[in-house]
Amino acid sequence: MIQRVVRTAAALVIGNELLTGKVLDANVHALAGSLRALGIRLSRVVMLPDEIGILAAEVRRLSAEFDVVFTSGGVGPTHDDVTVEAVAHAFGVEVVLDPTLSDLLRKVYGERLTDAHLLMARVPVGALLCGSPEVEWPTPVMNNVWILPGIPDLFKLKLLTARAWLRGPTSFVTRALFVRLEEPLLKPLLDAVVARHPEVEIGSYPKWFDPTYRTQITFDAESAGAAQAALDDLRNLLAPSDVVRAE
Amino acid sequence: MIQRVVRTAAALVIGNELLTGKVLDANVHALAGSLRALGIRLSRVVMLPDEIGILAAEVRRLSAEFDVVFTSGGVGPTHDDVTVEAVAHAFGVEVVLDPTLSDLLRKVYGERLTDAHLLMARVPVGALLCGSPEVEWPTPVMNNVWILPGIPDLFKLKLLTARAWLRGPTSFVTRALFVRLEEPLLKPLLDAVVARHPEVEIGSYPKWFDPTYRTQITFDAESAGAAQAALDDLRNLLAPSDVVRAE
Repeated sequence: MIQRVVRTAAALVIGNELLTGKVLDANVHALAGSLRALGIRLSRVVMLPDEIGILAAEVRRLSAEFDVVFTSGGVGPTHDDVTVEAVAHAFGVEVVLDPTLSDLLRKVYGERLTDAHLLMARVPVGALLCGSPEVEWPTPVMNNVWILPGIPDLFKLKLLTARAWLRGPTSFVTRALFVRLEEPLLKPLLDAVVARHPEVEIGSYPKWFDPTYRTQITFDAESAGAAQAALDDLRNLLAPSDVVRAE
Repeated sequence: MIQRVVRTAAALVIGNELLTGKVLDANVHALAGSLRALGIRLSRVVMLPDEIGILAAEVRRLSAEFDVVFTSGGVGPTHDDVTVEAVAHAFGVEVVLDPTLSDLLRKVYGERLTDAHLLMARVPVGALLCGSPEVEWPTPVMNNVWILPGIPDLFKLKLLTARAWLRGPTSFVTRALFVRLEEPLLKPLLDAVVARHPEVEIGSYPKWFDPTYRTQITFDAESAGAAQAALDDLRNLLAPSDVVRAE
């Protein structure tokens, strides 16, 4: 299988249950970690309610602006599952029953199968089904939009398929330094390091309630050498007693 | 204190650490629950990296479209903290040191105070400081944009202040029914109930890996009676043995 090279990604996370505080989303975190490991930059995440018009407009916008888009949620058979229809609407196509997905549903449910089960075989006209060896159920992909389920275990499973089909143009390396100094005292040193390593993305994260360290500094780069050089540069500006550990 | 009545809200969640999978965001969930309790509808959440131009454009858009906007993150003193500048940029104003916040920082840090500490006293010109009895540190509010810190404990603390200043036009009531039926079998019954209770927002959430129930049905309405009536309507369509519990 030849992986498609994509540089940027966006996610559209769908569900009233998230926006009303009933459920804490964990899919963005799983997606973000997977994409990072592939060298793909997750650039925008949007969370929206189950409303076709709003979702369709967002799919259209994200699909045009980013190389690949992942939707999460809204793919079941009930009235509040409107993702497939919204994606279809975004691209001006109809929704049809996919024969491969229908057959899979027939295999799973046998004589218990109803018309409602078959609603889970709906895809936008023109969608491809992407599979991978470790995931039996294929994922509908409409143009550059991957339609993933919202249930966290299933979402993560489908990420394995995405990992088989997609990769970034490069890979990211992350290093981290944990220090005892608070951010305001670190700032002048950090500014110097940021200025000297423009190719490294440096993040500073205070930890207010941890007894072991006060600030985590992260170094993200496309080369391990560059990330390490920036980390070493900062470490050399610090007293050894201020450094808790490097990762 | 007279609470301002707002109907819709949006959130702008800021930070490379979220989009690279280093950190799982929990602030959206906290915000969503708080707003729901206030009767305010959280309609859109956007997660973006630490880039001023991108953030400013989004603040402008969300501020125009929704009654109130909450930002999360990017308010510390380091190079990657750009939220205040982005909000200022969105409204075409400068950033200044606020004297109240400067004094608070001087009180906290005393002789240890540096110029870097004072970066945490920056606000967009024209921002108000909103306080509340239980939260000492006031929150900068620029037009309808509440600028909240990303650290989850502090974010939650600031939500107490928001709760003192804002409320929705009504309140939401949520009921739930947990049933043993899978969604495809529920669907025809659910469609009937949805059609008969247009004033109730009905959600259906399958649970794939729970031994006690297969689907949770939620009923959200502005009146307890309406939510309860829809729940009872569905319950009457089910065999008693299919119902696990109501909440």
